[in-house]
Amino acid sequence: MNIKSQNNYLNCKPEDQLERIRFNSVDLVSEEELLRKLKKSFKEKKPLKIKAGFDPSRPDLHLGHVIVLNKLKLFQDLGHHVVFLIGDFTAQIGDPSGLDKTRPLLNAKEVKQNAETYSRQVFKILDSHKTKVRFNSEWMNKMSAVDLIHLAGQHTVARMLERDDFSKRFKKNQPICIHEFLYPLVQGYDSVVLESDVELGATDQLFNLLVGRELQKRKGQEPQCVLTFPLLEGLDGVRKMSKSYNNYIAIEDSPKEIFGKTMKLSDDLMFRYYELLTDKTNQELKQLKEDLKTGKAHPMKVKMDLACFFVECFYDTATAEKERENFKNIFSRQEVPSDIQKYTVSPAEDFWICHLICESGLSPSTSEARRLIQGRAVEIDGEKVQDSNLKMNLKAGDEFILKAGKRRFVKIVVGI
Amino acid sequence: MNIKSQNNYLNCKPEDQLERIRFNSVDLVSEEELLRKLKKSFKEKKPLKIKAGFDPSRPDLHLGHVIVLNKLKLFQDLGHHVVFLIGDFTAQIGDPSGLDKTRPLLNAKEVKQNAETYSRQVFKILDSHKTKVRFNSEWMNKMSAVDLIHLAGQHTVARMLERDDFSKRFKKNQPICIHEFLYPLVQGYDSVVLESDVELGATDQLFNLLVGRELQKRKGQEPQCVLTFPLLEGLDGVRKMSKSYNNYIAIEDSPKEIFGKTMKLSDDLMFRYYELLTDKTNQELKQLKEDLKTGKAHPMKVKMDLACFFVECFYDTATAEKERENFKNIFSRQEVPSDIQKYTVSPAEDFWICHLICESGLSPSTSEARRLIQGRAVEIDGEKVQDSNLKMNLKAGDEFILKAGKRRFVKIVVGI
Repeated sequence: MNIKSQNNYLNCKPEDQLERIRFNSVDLVSEEELLRKLKKSFKEKKPLKIKAGFDPSRPDLHLGHVIVLNKLKLFQDLGHHVVFLIGDFTAQIGDPSGLDKTRPLLNAKEVKQNAETYSRQVFKILDSHKTKVRFNSEWMNKMSAVDLIHLAGQHTVARMLERDDFSKRFKKNQPICIHEFLYPLVQGYDSVVLESDVELGATDQLFNLLVGRELQKRKGQEPQCVLTFPLLEGLDGVRKMSKSYNNYIAIEDSPKEIFGKTMKLSDDLMFRYYELLTDKTNQELKQLKEDLKTGKAHPMKVKMDLACFFVECFYDTATAEKERENFKNIFSRQEVPSDIQKYTVSPAEDFWICHLICESGLSPSTSEARRLIQGRAVEIDGEKVQDSNLKMNLKAGDEFILKAGKRRFVKIVVGI
Repeated sequence: MNIKSQNNYLNCKPEDQLERIRFNSVDLVSEEELLRKLKKSFKEKKPLKIKAGFDPSRPDLHLGHVIVLNKLKLFQDLGHHVVFLIGDFTAQIGDPSGLDKTRPLLNAKEVKQNAETYSRQVFKILDSHKTKVRFNSEWMNKMSAVDLIHLAGQHTVARMLERDDFSKRFKKNQPICIHEFLYPLVQGYDSVVLESDVELGATDQLFNLLVGRELQKRKGQEPQCVLTFPLLEGLDGVRKMSKSYNNYIAIEDSPKEIFGKTMKLSDDLMFRYYELLTDKTNQELKQLKEDLKTGKAHPMKVKMDLACFFVECFYDTATAEKERENFKNIFSRQEVPSDIQKYTVSPAEDFWICHLICESGLSPSTSEARRLIQGRAVEIDGEKVQDSNLKMNLKAGDEFILKAGKRRFVKIVVGI
């Protein structure tokens, strides 16, 4: 998404590249090395190989993945090569201990299907001509037990237990199966095979990315630089965005869903998404916040801009604008002021709608009320009234919102 | 060694088999299961499959190994089948972390050579017709990384860290490489492939043997029973017998070495060896100790019997008896009573040997002394005196043992 508003930085100076790349990153191991690589690449006109791995057992990409995809796209725009690595090897093995029932075990056909799904999604952001899609089963399926033992000899138990989640589980006496120690090594070995210069991932991947660095060093390769980015909070603003928490905006959501979900964000979260998912600079964001405070900008408008931006990224500008209009229409139909006036009526049968409109003060006369209904400008609880001869049954305790014209509301309360 | 004095127990009752098998064992998991297996085998006339694994990177077998080999032979005598498993797979991989410099890395040719050495040694004890020699590289070389990951999924990190040596190293922050966690699984997997009914090993193998049990259970096999035997103390009586401590009696030592090393044992250790390596019953050993106490038996004689027994096991009776005679001769030449009489002479040059023999009271006359020398019955510090005209230089401070005839000694001390 950064991308669409960016120029081609093929000739961007290394220092400037670094500045753009590290923006919003959490870990960078190490800045010095990355700058050296960028300088060498710039001097020799030789693009860097940028790796990012994805788990094919969860093929629905959401905004959480987009943070890294955006960075990959930035690298492409800067002239570098991207390897989109699908970790199908482990997905095909699943959890041999049988402990993790939630992780689906995929067969080769499903992996292929998921990979196609992936392509459809990631190429909404990445440039397909500058992206290599690889599957680690290519080399892992051929690996022998001997080779895996050699790989396992490159790392110690103590260091593996330093990984945050392992450490917690170990302390809590929750079982860690030995094969779980092998997966980070496999992921690291992928970097050896791909000879990647840089690997990107979310912060919770830091440990695994560093394993890749070490294995490369041991193989005599220049170790990859490691860049991590924040885990995006889900729509609830509490847990990380995940399909299993149902707090996500998926890349493949419909324009209507993307727009609607974005509009439900809290203002704080809206700014977080602006920060992590758009190309707004810190300066611009600061100004925007200021404008909201002073009333120069309206929060609803700022949120709609964000929603529009997301739809535009995964679809196009026209679709985005159409969604904006749709939303505005629906919103205006439902827009009920919080200080709405109440009007109490007594229970009655066959009460004419135009009388109610008149009595409650929404129109000066029943003929005016009839004209409003015929002009489709009257709603009961957001539903348009079609028939100007409508007779209503008003029962004690009923409450509803009666709207006539663009901004005139009244809350009808049926008394006893 | 038990063996040679044993009959064939093919028709031995299961309860009696159990009694003989468990004799001297440290762990037995579990007695109930083993008895059930023995009963079934007895009833169906179907021999059990007994597994014992050996490390081919150390091809010299010593008495420490003999404890288990003896038990294997017992199983053979009872009619069961023995699989002598050579763990060549790991020996060919070595330590991929490069941490263990002491463990030699073997190539296929060396493994084959060591295997031949092994056969030459073990068939001094085992019945070659009833022994299957297998190499775990047969199945492990064919294993894929995927299969090994599945194997690794069968065990947890916490359980592996319960192994005594791992636990100690972990607590001391000494590195444990991840592949080290894989080796016990490989060893356990061997039991799955071999479908072994019983596995034997030294006590320090208990953990690994139990892994085999678990893997078999998971594969739906009836789990092997596990029997461990004590680690034999080396000749120093302190550390376990090992080539690297140079405190061992090797199966391939010469008869002279075996005899000589045995004779150097302390009396306590002699009984330990009797207990663990011969077929003496507890009752017989108790009696022997009693006889030593009362003087009915001489410790030297009891030790010679043990030395003879060892030589007989690895060679034959005639060789053993020859060694006994050799030893006796050498010993008797050196046998000096601890309460030896002293005789002090003044320093002198060209002092005639026959005078000294006379003066010190070993013979009544010089002519008798001359006859003794001519009869090769005189020794100085264990060396025969050849010349009856020998003139000696007696210098102040000199001391030596003068022996004349079979049991007559005197300690000559040259005074100032």
